[in-house]
Amino acid sequence: MTTRDERKLLARAWFESLRDRIMAAFEELEREAPPGLYGAAPGAFERTPWQRPRAADGADQGGGVMGMMRGRLFEKVGVHTSTVFGSFPPDFAQQIRGAADDPRFWASGISLIAHMANPNVPAVHMNTRMIVTTQSWFGGGADLNPTLSAQRTADHPDARAFHATMKAACDRFDPDWYERYAKWAEEYFWLPHRGEPRGVGGIFYDHHDSGDWDRDFAFTQAVGEAFLEAFPAVVRRHIAEPWDDRLRAEQAHWRSRYVEFNLLYDRGTTFGLKTGGNVDSILSSMPPVAEWR
Amino acid sequence: MTTRDERKLLARAWFESLRDRIMAAFEELEREAPPGLYGAAPGAFERTPWQRPRAADGADQGGGVMGMMRGRLFEKVGVHTSTVFGSFPPDFAQQIRGAADDPRFWASGISLIAHMANPNVPAVHMNTRMIVTTQSWFGGGADLNPTLSAQRTADHPDARAFHATMKAACDRFDPDWYERYAKWAEEYFWLPHRGEPRGVGGIFYDHHDSGDWDRDFAFTQAVGEAFLEAFPAVVRRHIAEPWDDRLRAEQAHWRSRYVEFNLLYDRGTTFGLKTGGNVDSILSSMPPVAEWR
Repeated sequence: MTTRDERKLLARAWFESLRDRIMAAFEELEREAPPGLYGAAPGAFERTPWQRPRAADGADQGGGVMGMMRGRLFEKVGVHTSTVFGSFPPDFAQQIRGAADDPRFWASGISLIAHMANPNVPAVHMNTRMIVTTQSWFGGGADLNPTLSAQRTADHPDARAFHATMKAACDRFDPDWYERYAKWAEEYFWLPHRGEPRGVGGIFYDHHDSGDWDRDFAFTQAVGEAFLEAFPAVVRRHIAEPWDDRLRAEQAHWRSRYVEFNLLYDRGTTFGLKTGGNVDSILSSMPPVAEWR
Repeated sequence: MTTRDERKLLARAWFESLRDRIMAAFEELEREAPPGLYGAAPGAFERTPWQRPRAADGADQGGGVMGMMRGRLFEKVGVHTSTVFGSFPPDFAQQIRGAADDPRFWASGISLIAHMANPNVPAVHMNTRMIVTTQSWFGGGADLNPTLSAQRTADHPDARAFHATMKAACDRFDPDWYERYAKWAEEYFWLPHRGEPRGVGGIFYDHHDSGDWDRDFAFTQAVGEAFLEAFPAVVRRHIAEPWDDRLRAEQAHWRSRYVEFNLLYDRGTTFGLKTGGNVDSILSSMPPVAEWR
């Protein structure tokens, strides 16, 4: 059995290795994009390390690496990892599982959002993380956000394929998890003021602690692997499809809903912004352009 | 002395008459826009009435008129009036002055946001309202939001002229009000996560009740008149200035900050969206296009 410190090292190393593999896969897709449609040279990721400010007593509080690519296929994509630790502010600690009596925490994870140049290719979001307070759990998920109305249904082949891959990852561990976590995604990625979903969903989970850390870590790894299988397949299905200004306008419209969700409801975004997180990294999720016509 | 019911009628009539005069003034500016720069035909306002859903007991709860123009000079402008009444939900009533023990309220007002086609012309926001619970007060303000960095300083002639007109309106009533309300605008129209102001400010006031309703109503009228003087003057100063794609990109960048402010911090927007307000009317404040490059 692994110790808690070993688990932290294992989880962090895996999030960072997944980050490297995702960046490589996305850069490969960049290179595959037909020049006749996408012009110019393929983009590449730029990595910018950042540090949390030191604690009052001078202690290191961790940091991360922001990875951005502004390419020809990936119009704007962020793939970020961070490992942060320290103590939650007292009032905030009350709201966090296992932190009420001891505010110390450790958290490591990967987060990703891709906005595509081609409106036929859906946008996508993925993140997985491990959190340690006096308890320990995993959270994360992945959801697909098509930017054309015709693709924004559960029946569309992209939605079906994306969900099927996520389901297969869940089913390897527990036959109930996919249904539970897909339902959670449906509820979470929802714009109540519009009465609209953000996209076609996927899975969303939090406080995932089955009592078997090795199994839970393996599950979070499976979600990452499923993403790495599912999203590039969706991209390749549409990469050669041409588009015009009308489709770009439709994309810009749906991107405005993405903006609304993230600034009004997304817990990570609003919490991060209101508590002094890394603004550049948090708001790198904003689409390059959005329209409210 | 006027009764409370007469005051409601007077205030509502004035907000609606201000609305009509602002629409007429903006349509006049539309017609003045040089065709060589703005092309096409001038726009005109479209008015769409809406009603709040009836109360559980069938009582009328008021409504309003959404006024929108998508023109050649005014790329997207909303000028809305509403008069709403009923009872606040119990938990919300606790947060409203004078409503803790009696949740009944009446509110009437005008709100306006203009996003301009020409990046040289600042965007602007104005709203004034009268609220009645067991107490009664006025609130409102006007602030200028230039979309070019060079114009986003207190020293710029536009900012100086806009503030001077607001100051003159305040000074007719009380020599302290301009300083107090300009400072309030500076604090309110602020993006803490960016460490940036939303624009160059103006005035912002709430719970304005000096004990003399006639004087307070006259003050709110003066703010409306000041807006009607100050903003068209700013527009005419820049209406003939050409622009290019580079300036449009700069405008789209600053518009993204306007989106962030409204969705993250603006009390009217977030409260309205989270409590079932008229989404179309509330989010008509969103710029037609915004960029996060």
